[in-house]
Amino acid sequence: MRYELYYWTGIQGRGEFVRLALENARASYTDVARIEGDQAIMPFLRGEHAGALPFAPPFLRAGRLLIAQTANILAFLAPRHGLIPASSASQIYAMQLQQTITDIVAEAHDTHHPIAVEQYYEQQRAEARKRSASFCAQRIPKYLGYFEQVLERGDGHHAIGRRHSYVDLSLFQLMSGLDYAFPNAMKGLRRRTARLRALRDRVADRPNIAAYLASERRIPFNEDGIFRHYPELDES
Amino acid sequence: MRYELYYWTGIQGRGEFVRLALENARASYTDVARIEGDQAIMPFLRGEHAGALPFAPPFLRAGRLLIAQTANILAFLAPRHGLIPASSASQIYAMQLQQTITDIVAEAHDTHHPIAVEQYYEQQRAEARKRSASFCAQRIPKYLGYFEQVLERGDGHHAIGRRHSYVDLSLFQLMSGLDYAFPNAMKGLRRRTARLRALRDRVADRPNIAAYLASERRIPFNEDGIFRHYPELDES
Repeated sequence: MRYELYYWTGIQGRGEFVRLALENARASYTDVARIEGDQAIMPFLRGEHAGALPFAPPFLRAGRLLIAQTANILAFLAPRHGLIPASSASQIYAMQLQQTITDIVAEAHDTHHPIAVEQYYEQQRAEARKRSASFCAQRIPKYLGYFEQVLERGDGHHAIGRRHSYVDLSLFQLMSGLDYAFPNAMKGLRRRTARLRALRDRVADRPNIAAYLASERRIPFNEDGIFRHYPELDES
Repeated sequence: MRYELYYWTGIQGRGEFVRLALENARASYTDVARIEGDQAIMPFLRGEHAGALPFAPPFLRAGRLLIAQTANILAFLAPRHGLIPASSASQIYAMQLQQTITDIVAEAHDTHHPIAVEQYYEQQRAEARKRSASFCAQRIPKYLGYFEQVLERGDGHHAIGRRHSYVDLSLFQLMSGLDYAFPNAMKGLRRRTARLRALRDRVADRPNIAAYLASERRIPFNEDGIFRHYPELDES
């Protein structure tokens, strides 16, 4: 099956979690807006297509299905591409972990937009400093401590089972994004995130992922995305 | 099967979405912390039980399974209790909608905690006013406009299919919470949310739900929960 992925151009954003799963599987897909422009997304948001109505990108077309919400897209793709064990207990746990990644990603976004998503960062800079201070001191350690514990309870190297699942790909992306946005805060957590760092390196070395990361398909992190490096928001 | 639900006492919070599904089904469940106290939750968060590790409540024990994340719990319960059609397309769409409800619930929480979840509302009151202004003017209309459109694209009365699904129960809770927290803002949207209001009323009239809402098991909305009524955060 050839998939169509719809996501805003120019940023990794939430679409990147889907791209990583597709690239890992060498699935056949078109990243539609990168060819046709962001306007290709709009008819779907206006409800001009049949089927599920997306609130926002990313969304995926797979045959007659249209699927939105990152964790939901991943749960759909994973069993089709060897990215999750077959047992329902594994799939339920993976969805739980992925939804927890969704939560920290939303909080990472709000470090630079704590007041209003429709306003610029520059209009909420003072509040962004305060929110980021809490995010770095409290929330990153809490979430990453949790995911470290998840790895420990597994085989030490994978979130679920004994092979890489889509959750591991997403943890790679989470760690990469936090390292980009908050290098100082993440440096301070290095010893407490040893398993996550090893996981991130192992995922980056997977042949299909390494090829993707080296390609032009991987958009660099930048200050339009979710993980933004504003030095004033990082720990000093 | 007898379920065990774990959620903080004293608030509806995210646990309420699960309670509504259980109550609608007249499922047999124990709301454990309301009997044993919040300390019953802690051993699970410390990882002292086998199986899935929850990041936070609510979580549900169902036989040997432990399941966390509200949308994930609901997706597990729904097919067992007639709360979702059998088709995978319906279940995927329901999960997408429920995850979008998760998103607005998180934003509703952040109206009173825009800076730091570990600090009191009183410590972030000025920022809360700004965030709430954006939430009322931009975010509530955007989300509720979306869910109105979802109902229109369906049979006009249900989010999915032609019977109430768990998504409808959650939309009831969302509307109830927003009405409690932001009565003025919601009054201004009355004409644009006619289908959601009718849905909320129909869900409230379902016999099992009506019995639950009239019981002591339904904790009143209050200013410790997610939906808090602070008049200074509502539109005037």
